[in-house]
Amino acid sequence: MKVSRRATFNAAHRLFRPDWTDEKNIEIFGKCSNPNFHGHNYVLEVILDGEIDPETGYVIDLKIVKDAIKSEIDERFDHRNLNLDCPEFKDLNPTAENIAVVTWNLLRSKLPMHLELTIKLWETENNCVEYAGK
Amino acid sequence: MKVSRRATFNAAHRLFRPDWTDEKNIEIFGKCSNPNFHGHNYVLEVILDGEIDPETGYVIDLKIVKDAIKSEIDERFDHRNLNLDCPEFKDLNPTAENIAVVTWNLLRSKLPMHLELTIKLWETENNCVEYAGK
Amino acid sequence: MKVSRRATFNAAHRLFRPDWTDEKNIEIFGKCSNPNFHGHNYVLEVILDGEIDPETGYVIDLKIVKDAIKSEIDERFDHRNLNLDCPEFKDLNPTAENIAVVTWNLLRSKLPMHLELTIKLWETENNCVEYAGK
Amino acid sequence: MKVSRRATFNAAHRLFRPDWTDEKNIEIFGKCSNPNFHGHNYVLEVILDGEIDPETGYVIDLKIVKDAIKSEIDERFDHRNLNLDCPEFKDLNPTAENIAVVTWNLLRSKLPMHLELTIKLWETENNCVEYAGK
Amino acid sequence: MKVSRRATFNAAHRLFRPDWTDEKNIEIFGKCSNPNFHGHNYVLEVILDGEIDPETGYVIDLKIVKDAIKSEIDERFDHRNLNLDCPEFKDLNPTAENIAVVTWNLLRSKLPMHLELTIKLWETENNCVEYAGK
Amino acid sequence: MKVSRRATFNAAHRLFRPDWTDEKNIEIFGKCSNPNFHGHNYVLEVILDGEIDPETGYVIDLKIVKDAIKSEIDERFDHRNLNLDCPEFKDLNPTAENIAVVTWNLLRSKLPMHLELTIKLWETENNCVEYAGK
Repeated sequence: MKVSRRATFNAAHRLFRPDWTDEKNIEIFGKCSNPNFHGHNYVLEVILDGEIDPETGYVIDLKIVKDAIKSEIDERFDHRNLNLDCPEFKDLNPTAENIAVVTWNLLRSKLPMHLELTIKLWETENNCVEYAGK
Repeated sequence: MKVSRRATFNAAHRLFRPDWTDEKNIEIFGKCSNPNFHGHNYVLEVILDGEIDPETGYVIDLKIVKDAIKSEIDERFDHRNLNLDCPEFKDLNPTAENIAVVTWNLLRSKLPMHLELTIKLWETENNCVEYAGK
Repeated sequence: MKVSRRATFNAAHRLFRPDWTDEKNIEIFGKCSNPNFHGHNYVLEVILDGEIDPETGYVIDLKIVKDAIKSEIDERFDHRNLNLDCPEFKDLNPTAENIAVVTWNLLRSKLPMHLELTIKLWETENNCVEYAGK
Repeated sequence: MKVSRRATFNAAHRLFRPDWTDEKNIEIFGKCSNPNFHGHNYVLEVILDGEIDPETGYVIDLKIVKDAIKSEIDERFDHRNLNLDCPEFKDLNPTAENIAVVTWNLLRSKLPMHLELTIKLWETENNCVEYAGK
Repeated sequence: MKVSRRATFNAAHRLFRPDWTDEKNIEIFGKCSNPNFHGHNYVLEVILDGEIDPETGYVIDLKIVKDAIKSEIDERFDHRNLNLDCPEFKDLNPTAENIAVVTWNLLRSKLPMHLELTIKLWETENNCVEYAGK
Repeated sequence: MKVSRRATFNAAHRLFRPDWTDEKNIEIFGKCSNPNFHGHNYVLEVILDGEIDPETGYVIDLKIVKDAIKSEIDERFDHRNLNLDCPEFKDLNPTAENIAVVTWNLLRSKLPMHLELTIKLWETENNCVEYAGK
């Protein structure tokens, strides 16, 4: 049984490797590497897979997931510049893939280990990534 | 090859164990256990996994799935109080997880056994569960 | 210039006039009058029409609207039974139309009078009402 | 890590086997076999599963996927009659299932082989198929 | 007070004037004039504006609107070729604008005259028209 | 008759008056004034109101609107920092309201004057503004 909780956050970013020049970043990442940044309304889906607790009928109270998203993700990334404000991306290019990995790691330690964790992240209505740990 | 059919139904419920007091139900389930109920527009997705029939090009005519949803789910749960009107939940807490299990069981016997069945159920636009049988 | 804020709440109701018998209620309102209630995920859009404040570039800080929805609507109606828990509907049939009028009246007194107020309310993804005051 | 790209195309079709009479086609496929065709706004999701490239932080630059959808799918099927204009369906009934298989085959040869390919295709907001190769 | 009901239908069409050659039709209408047709999932919203009936709390029972859409629009246009199967478009180019006018006229005579009627019609998720009568 | 075209663009911004200190900007605009910016997937709807051309059945060929959005809006604002990259917002706070006014002005001169122009702009799925000129 899988259960999931959806949330959103709004952030600026640029696709950028600090060990490359701006020119090379723009050559490889195109307009996604605009030096002054652009931004997205990210949509996050946190999926947990496990057994139903017969006492409550829940896999997990989704309020726990909602609160973990708020404290671990929303307070870190919402209304922030991922490249400049977030140490997680100081040396990591904030592609949707890498944001999903960082999000997975941040939430993994806050959610019960007997539940398998998967992250879906939409960068736009057309682009999405999904990560389930290594 | 998976094929799926989406449908909706509207129902009242409260999260509630009849062997607990209202006070304990509210302590554990919060506002979801309001004694006078609340309700949702449930969105159901019925997913079947199997081979394409080379004669028709269908895995299954989705009209069969639509009709099964109507007779087994819609006529039982739509515009009903899951706790009071539906014997399936007389002794079963109507969490999204348990509604998905009940829905899976009701549809399993009506849909071809060579097709694997999965149920997705959205309780709100942010909360979803998925069940594929044991 | 119009600005709007969307929110959701989940409630149980039945279409019902207390001065009619259950039989007459069911004759007129059909399954929407099920005596044990059903429910919806209501989607509310609060629209305000006025001039941009040249100092801020806002018609109104939408946080004010978000907070008014929370205190006036969410705390009254979310996870409630509109017929049993909400005095606003003690003698008023909780149709989408009447919920929109009640919502308009509750918000009108909390939002700046120089801004025209309109309420849109979706009861399901297919049914919607809109009310702009008399 | 999975990444996906969504796109749409609009096409006419009828469910139809040329080796059956119109009468038999209509008996089996109902109004979907209307001899003068009907049509859909198809929504396509192309999903690729693989490792993140540590140099770019991408599984794949989704612009490559976007361009492959444009050249292989959009230019073939958009604003076309699948039965009459598209040789792929000359002897293949254009059910959603078969369109997904054809789409998978067309894209498979254009996208990197180390990435697993899955196709989701919505024919309507309620009907969807998913194909991941044999 | 406005109330609205949403519905969908799937149809084939081509933008085409029978008094023009295919060449001129394609010159003016581009790929929308493909001689073998293309198609859409049309989304229709029927909006009625009037007073709340104090007895029922309804502007109109939306079941009446749902039934009118079914008998007047769905049975005429769903799974049809608008150009070939529908006499309404024998001499009228089936643009979204003209479909909205035809839909307005068909529904106007079936819905109470004291309610103002507006039609919204989405041809794709990006293209929409709205018609409120002359 | 109204016709509309939807499009999206992704941009970074901060709510900010250059004649105020960062401290005052943050006091008034909260986290929306983060000095390092945040961003959004803006959704734009361009609505034109006028008569149907009886020759084509169009109010306007929506390709003209699509192209005007691309040249006037997308090329200016997509994947840009509204505050730093766009002279339109050098001395104008890029609230959704002001972006709508700027968008209206940019498109007004490119679209036929006999058609009334309205702009809707969603900054998030919950926040929207609408501007129809003075």
